[in-house]
Amino acid sequence: MAECIETSMQSIPLGEIAEHVGATLSGDPETLVDGIAALEDAGPSQLSFLTHARYGPSLAGCKAAALIVPPSFRDLEFPLLICEQPYLALAKTAQLFVKPSNTFSGIHPTAHVAEHAHLGSDVAIGALAHVGDRASIGAGSCIMGNVYLGSDVQIGEDCLIYPGVTILDGCQIGSRVTIHSGTVIGSDGFGYAQDERGQHVKIPQIGIVQIDDNVEIGANCTIDRATFGRTWIRTGCKIDNLVQIAHNVVVGEHSILVSQVGISGSTRIGKHVVLAGQVGVVGHIKIGDGARVGAKSGVSNSVKDREDVSGIPAVPHKEWLKNSAHIRRLSHYREDLRRLKMKVDELEKSLSRSLSPMGK
Amino acid sequence: MAECIETSMQSIPLGEIAEHVGATLSGDPETLVDGIAALEDAGPSQLSFLTHARYGPSLAGCKAAALIVPPSFRDLEFPLLICEQPYLALAKTAQLFVKPSNTFSGIHPTAHVAEHAHLGSDVAIGALAHVGDRASIGAGSCIMGNVYLGSDVQIGEDCLIYPGVTILDGCQIGSRVTIHSGTVIGSDGFGYAQDERGQHVKIPQIGIVQIDDNVEIGANCTIDRATFGRTWIRTGCKIDNLVQIAHNVVVGEHSILVSQVGISGSTRIGKHVVLAGQVGVVGHIKIGDGARVGAKSGVSNSVKDREDVSGIPAVPHKEWLKNSAHIRRLSHYREDLRRLKMKVDELEKSLSRSLSPMGK
Amino acid sequence: MAECIETSMQSIPLGEIAEHVGATLSGDPETLVDGIAALEDAGPSQLSFLTHARYGPSLAGCKAAALIVPPSFRDLEFPLLICEQPYLALAKTAQLFVKPSNTFSGIHPTAHVAEHAHLGSDVAIGALAHVGDRASIGAGSCIMGNVYLGSDVQIGEDCLIYPGVTILDGCQIGSRVTIHSGTVIGSDGFGYAQDERGQHVKIPQIGIVQIDDNVEIGANCTIDRATFGRTWIRTGCKIDNLVQIAHNVVVGEHSILVSQVGISGSTRIGKHVVLAGQVGVVGHIKIGDGARVGAKSGVSNSVKDREDVSGIPAVPHKEWLKNSAHIRRLSHYREDLRRLKMKVDELEKSLSRSLSPMGK
Repeated sequence: MAECIETSMQSIPLGEIAEHVGATLSGDPETLVDGIAALEDAGPSQLSFLTHARYGPSLAGCKAAALIVPPSFRDLEFPLLICEQPYLALAKTAQLFVKPSNTFSGIHPTAHVAEHAHLGSDVAIGALAHVGDRASIGAGSCIMGNVYLGSDVQIGEDCLIYPGVTILDGCQIGSRVTIHSGTVIGSDGFGYAQDERGQHVKIPQIGIVQIDDNVEIGANCTIDRATFGRTWIRTGCKIDNLVQIAHNVVVGEHSILVSQVGISGSTRIGKHVVLAGQVGVVGHIKIGDGARVGAKSGVSNSVKDREDVSGIPAVPHKEWLKNSAHIRRLSHYREDLRRLKMKVDELEKSLSRSLSPMGK
Repeated sequence: MAECIETSMQSIPLGEIAEHVGATLSGDPETLVDGIAALEDAGPSQLSFLTHARYGPSLAGCKAAALIVPPSFRDLEFPLLICEQPYLALAKTAQLFVKPSNTFSGIHPTAHVAEHAHLGSDVAIGALAHVGDRASIGAGSCIMGNVYLGSDVQIGEDCLIYPGVTILDGCQIGSRVTIHSGTVIGSDGFGYAQDERGQHVKIPQIGIVQIDDNVEIGANCTIDRATFGRTWIRTGCKIDNLVQIAHNVVVGEHSILVSQVGISGSTRIGKHVVLAGQVGVVGHIKIGDGARVGAKSGVSNSVKDREDVSGIPAVPHKEWLKNSAHIRRLSHYREDLRRLKMKVDELEKSLSRSLSPMGK
Repeated sequence: MAECIETSMQSIPLGEIAEHVGATLSGDPETLVDGIAALEDAGPSQLSFLTHARYGPSLAGCKAAALIVPPSFRDLEFPLLICEQPYLALAKTAQLFVKPSNTFSGIHPTAHVAEHAHLGSDVAIGALAHVGDRASIGAGSCIMGNVYLGSDVQIGEDCLIYPGVTILDGCQIGSRVTIHSGTVIGSDGFGYAQDERGQHVKIPQIGIVQIDDNVEIGANCTIDRATFGRTWIRTGCKIDNLVQIAHNVVVGEHSILVSQVGISGSTRIGKHVVLAGQVGVVGHIKIGDGARVGAKSGVSNSVKDREDVSGIPAVPHKEWLKNSAHIRRLSHYREDLRRLKMKVDELEKSLSRSLSPMGK
């Protein structure tokens, strides 16, 4: 995948894999497999998988050695690894075959490492990378080519920083953090005050970004430094590509931000939150623990714990579904209204006709 | 425009241009022009153009040598190149004046090219570029400064890779492909399984990105590698800036993705599709050949061939137009409803008054 | 914050700060402060602030030396700097403590500077930066590490170009411009004509990008060069992260584009305009001076001076609020309609019953 990762060439018996992922094996435990591939690509020494019902039993021509499947597929006539959570089993199995391994080591001669930088043991620094003054990089971390680390940047242990990442002065990264190419950590927050002429006076942004352990951040994201204090991405968060996180935002543990999400300044996202693709969140609000926001929604008010919301502006998800269905029926409602009007007019006329002789 | 492209200084007679683009010339075929410019900027040796009716005849002060126009403007009192498809003629004419030409050649001494890289003839590699192990670059391709190519990357012939592009390990690029600055090809897909504690277990992403011939990709895009297999951008696609393409997506031939589009995992986009700006598409669906999706739409279900859809969630475009019109009239409908209620109440009272003496 | 900026270590008396920002001081003018921090972080030698009512008086445990507050908080029992525009005062005070200061100077030996580049006095160029042929950089500008400047790029005085920025050939940057990491200036506009087979013929993009004085541009933005002429960002504009500006767009003086905004080709944005987050604007329209567009809106028609619009498609903001409220009440309207229908049916029956004996 990248310089630091390489597919291992080892073969593993099916029985060992079944045990590792807690699957029930239907097939020969001695069969050796040496990799994983999609159903249509897998060869006779490779595992494959069926995780979605919709990709169901079209196994004609499938050459895979065995399939990882959920219990609903247990009756397929094929060597199977049957497990309650096939996606989790897939992840764990794939990890057996893909072992992180520095294919380069040491400091490339074309890298620029400042004299006062501190490098732990087994740190790898790629070609044309830049490590600033007093930066510190923990043991086992791999800084790939063309990365820029500013002054006083701290990187923990066993991190993987992909080519073209920029981490600006003073930002702090935990351990086992992965940051993909083109992402910028520690750019200035967007903070201005307006003077009497309507011109914008910059509020200096003097805080930092802190990223905790086990975070993964996608490509071409932007995470702004705090005005004062810190912008904070907490343990275990997973952030997709092209996500924007403004100054002083806090994202709680194990939350997921899907691609092209934008979060405005000082908003606090709880733990185990999911923001789907292209969601926007205004500043200075709170998204509760376990909340989920539907794709493309615009969240303008705080969201409670475990609440699901959708829409622009976002409302409870069920309400949004109902409203959307109503919108699609507006032509009918309008037609109903028109007919009812005609009927009422008719009634009115009838009544007036029936009453007028009586009134006479 | 960039190091590899330069405006030629040659002068071309109008008659030759008319022939080249299939235009009817109204004017002197011997007039020499040496470039193209917008209407208000064009000097006496430059061509200009009128392609949109709304930019119509304000030719007072226009100094251009001649204008490329559609037939509807054929009566203008000005030297004209009249053509059915003025925009296409403009493209072809501009290409006469702007010739790709390597203004640098060879490998810059500050570039890092791995020993086992393979470079075709006439490859140019700019300053501070990085070419990884076993990378292969086809004849005539230009890798500009600050580009990062990982290990085993394959680039075809006559490609133009702009400064700051990152192409990660194993990705395959066809011939005559242009990739603009800051774009990342081959970042990890966003794939996790959840364990029993709600924590995210990474599914290793071991596939590649394959980009076919004649594709152009804008600036700061992200195209993730496949989980297994390939993410695939097929021949002739044009992709604007800041577009996100997730793992295992396939984009069919000659499709257009406008700026800030996001496509989720495993979705298949057909041929000649147009996704307008800021569109989002969920994962695991199919957009049919020739389909068009309106700006800012959120597509959550498959779209048929040649269907036009819009809205969040996307519905057939005409239906969306109708629904939007209804939404703008909701105040009226509500008022109609209120009045009708009053009227019915009145009717009810009248009827009850008229009936009550009779019932007595 | 970055190599070129450093927090000063000086201490300043409160009285001097009050005078500098035009605040009324309630407290000891001799108290020395040496920095600014958020309310919960500020220590006894630091200023803090209360600018939003919602962050109101929870001062228990606040250790700050004094607070910048609006007049509404003037009765707090705490040392105060009371000012009409606390946010502006905060900006001006913070600027006292954060002084731009080149912590590096001269040209780093690993930078690539073309022979024919022209550098003003006191220009700083960081490690692994690239300065193209005939590029010109004004006095006092700081080009940080890993920046790429193409040929013929012009940069004014006292600019700050952050690591990883790419400015392509021929683009012109004014003075006191700040550009954050990963931003691409001068990528090709997205311009194609379609030929008879539905394939896309590139319209060469031979214009430039011109950025005027005092502009600040966020991280990972893309600003495309003009097809012909220029894409133009005028004096004092502030642009947030991940913003897309297409070819030939003009953005007027002192306008604000919030994160993830996208503007299509040839659109003209007026002066003092605000486009909120994730707004999209179609091409070839005009947004008037002082107009404001609500977050996530899609603007498909020109907007008048000082008009506020929202929604997809955008309508006047008040109308959008009203329509959104109606949408949330559609269930009620529909229920009203259903009941009214029943009532009318009842009435009809009553009337027919009451009429039929009479008709007999």
